[in-house]
Amino acid sequence: MNGEDCLAGVRVLDLTQFEAGPSCTEALAWLGAEVVKVENPKSGDPGRALSPPPQGDAHYFLQYNANKKSIALDLKSPRDLALAKALAARADVFVENFAPGAIERLGLGPETVRALNPAIIYAQVKGFGAGSPYERNLAFDMIAQACGGTMSITGEVEGPPLKPGPTLGDTGTGMLLAISILAALYRRARTGQGEHLEVAMQDAMFQYIRGAFATLTRTGSTPRRAGAGSVLALNPPMGTYPCKGGGANDYVYVYTSRANPEHWRRLLGVIGREDLADDPRYATPAARAERAAEVDGMVAAWTRVHDKHEAMRILGAAGIPAGAVLDPAELLNDPTFAERGIVQTMAHPTAGAYKMPAWPVRFSGRPPPVHPAPLLGEHTETVLAEWLGTMSADMRTRVGD
Amino acid sequence: MNGEDCLAGVRVLDLTQFEAGPSCTEALAWLGAEVVKVENPKSGDPGRALSPPPQGDAHYFLQYNANKKSIALDLKSPRDLALAKALAARADVFVENFAPGAIERLGLGPETVRALNPAIIYAQVKGFGAGSPYERNLAFDMIAQACGGTMSITGEVEGPPLKPGPTLGDTGTGMLLAISILAALYRRARTGQGEHLEVAMQDAMFQYIRGAFATLTRTGSTPRRAGAGSVLALNPPMGTYPCKGGGANDYVYVYTSRANPEHWRRLLGVIGREDLADDPRYATPAARAERAAEVDGMVAAWTRVHDKHEAMRILGAAGIPAGAVLDPAELLNDPTFAERGIVQTMAHPTAGAYKMPAWPVRFSGRPPPVHPAPLLGEHTETVLAEWLGTMSADMRTRVGD
Repeated sequence: MNGEDCLAGVRVLDLTQFEAGPSCTEALAWLGAEVVKVENPKSGDPGRALSPPPQGDAHYFLQYNANKKSIALDLKSPRDLALAKALAARADVFVENFAPGAIERLGLGPETVRALNPAIIYAQVKGFGAGSPYERNLAFDMIAQACGGTMSITGEVEGPPLKPGPTLGDTGTGMLLAISILAALYRRARTGQGEHLEVAMQDAMFQYIRGAFATLTRTGSTPRRAGAGSVLALNPPMGTYPCKGGGANDYVYVYTSRANPEHWRRLLGVIGREDLADDPRYATPAARAERAAEVDGMVAAWTRVHDKHEAMRILGAAGIPAGAVLDPAELLNDPTFAERGIVQTMAHPTAGAYKMPAWPVRFSGRPPPVHPAPLLGEHTETVLAEWLGTMSADMRTRVGD
Repeated sequence: MNGEDCLAGVRVLDLTQFEAGPSCTEALAWLGAEVVKVENPKSGDPGRALSPPPQGDAHYFLQYNANKKSIALDLKSPRDLALAKALAARADVFVENFAPGAIERLGLGPETVRALNPAIIYAQVKGFGAGSPYERNLAFDMIAQACGGTMSITGEVEGPPLKPGPTLGDTGTGMLLAISILAALYRRARTGQGEHLEVAMQDAMFQYIRGAFATLTRTGSTPRRAGAGSVLALNPPMGTYPCKGGGANDYVYVYTSRANPEHWRRLLGVIGREDLADDPRYATPAARAERAAEVDGMVAAWTRVHDKHEAMRILGAAGIPAGAVLDPAELLNDPTFAERGIVQTMAHPTAGAYKMPAWPVRFSGRPPPVHPAPLLGEHTETVLAEWLGTMSADMRTRVGD
């Protein structure tokens, strides 16, 4: 077993869509929880339709819903709402990330569900926190990143703020909620206590930019954008240097730490400039910062005649922190990730075979196994039977349609 | 209680430094674990000295080590190593993020510690995974972001790859490890089973760029950088638009979803261009993509005459996803975050009073309370007494120095 048994027996009723909520419940599913995604019978999670193929679900959906089950319920019908409540009464965790107010209008708000099941962990994701002037506003990943500070510290030194490519507003929030759910479950195993968890995507961004808050507190002013450098300190050489090939991602990141003067000395050895090892013009990080363009030019003169893999290999072997800028295609097609289980291949009934990143933490040497995302309503019958038993058939007949 | 009792009774022996490891153990501390940071008596975690004030610890350290205890042990002395092993024998969780091979050389590698305490959750962060060609390489946040794909999808459309400002390589990795530790603890409460967890910073980056992997699988080619847009699709208006004031962060993010045609219609109303509502040149996302510069120009003509807060207020109230680009100073000084407990004020013996972001997830309405980071060795005596009792005094006398 490689972690997939950790949450065995934990039942998660999952009313999430798109990414912030689904990334959270997917992490729980990967680690062994039974995650039942409640979807409307017409089209399900709208993520299924984000740039979909001619037939079947979008790859966007497949990424964020692996290892889950799907049950199709029309929450606007009294019968299906009653079934959803009966499921909630038997769940350990309930997660939703609808627009503000929507879950209450559906009749599954925190007060209702916690009254049905006081021991449940009821978890919500919104764009802005209760009490924020913007608590009723719509939010998406990019809005959270604009309002949460991550854009303000991303971009060229003299350029406008830029959105980080990673979807921190979504998955970054989902991961913090997963931690909180697991902590609450751990307490519940001891005390039986339920919990109401709420996270705002804007607030969650703070967790990922605390170096910038440290710089602000230290200097008294908000950190400037640092390009490929760091808001903690500009400290050349430190950045992406162009490599042979000249393609969009033919760059190598080279870093020389202020905490270790050997990095600079080793780098001079690699680039054939040992003559500068004791030159006071370059001897300290402060001196190099004064001559940043010149220092960067020396490094680039060397990187330009090496391809990025070669540059990373040579610099890394010499004990200098260095990394080739790798793109998703290079990563997905590098067989060493598949060998280590970091990338796994799915067999999906409509999408066929495709590779996707797994949970990247290894348990006893390997990540937990990934199973493809469910078809819409694939598990309606089995989940109703397993969670509700004969009560399910009764309810479906009695409320009837 | 607001979550700070969730992990009551969980003992974490914390041999981490800088950020990737400390952010993980700090999350556990915020949620109630007793996290004991083992530091060398001379200078402790090197994060204490990253741009420090004339006296005392760097704000960088204070951000990532709140709610922890500190015990000073010289692991190169036989007496202190024996004490560390005795503590490990009583810990529930052990976390380290030294350079590759270092923890084994110290005599506290996974085999040693798990032999002493088979039920322990032993967790490690490295730059690259075991089996990677780079497993012996040094890594820092930026190296992980270069090699993990996040830089390749950040930057202007025609520009070079750029480092996202958020420290995903560090904190992004730490959060995934915290989830894994909690899942393993949950299983352990049921089965008594220990675990060996390992995460590589490079591998962890995949978790945050899965939209890019979805685009790659869908289109067959690696996604291009999208500036302030999205790797999923370029879809104007979608991006940061300049606002009145003209400062470095005087921008508002405006987004119109492909999934909701009303966003565009509402936006035309706000900017006074209802005349274009049924104009086929702009009616669909595909048509607007053809005329991106023109569409962006219309939006900017409106945003330029509003400040970013006003723009966000007007657009948000009209049901258009919009967010002012806020910087760390604006966020830290906005009193609504302090009122909601998202930002809390510390009283630290040397740093004095300072504000810092708390764990952003609210438990029953408020985040857990934050307590300032420990002084180096502040809890040496109490931890030894509480964890080891009279054995501690015996060991210190017997091994003696």
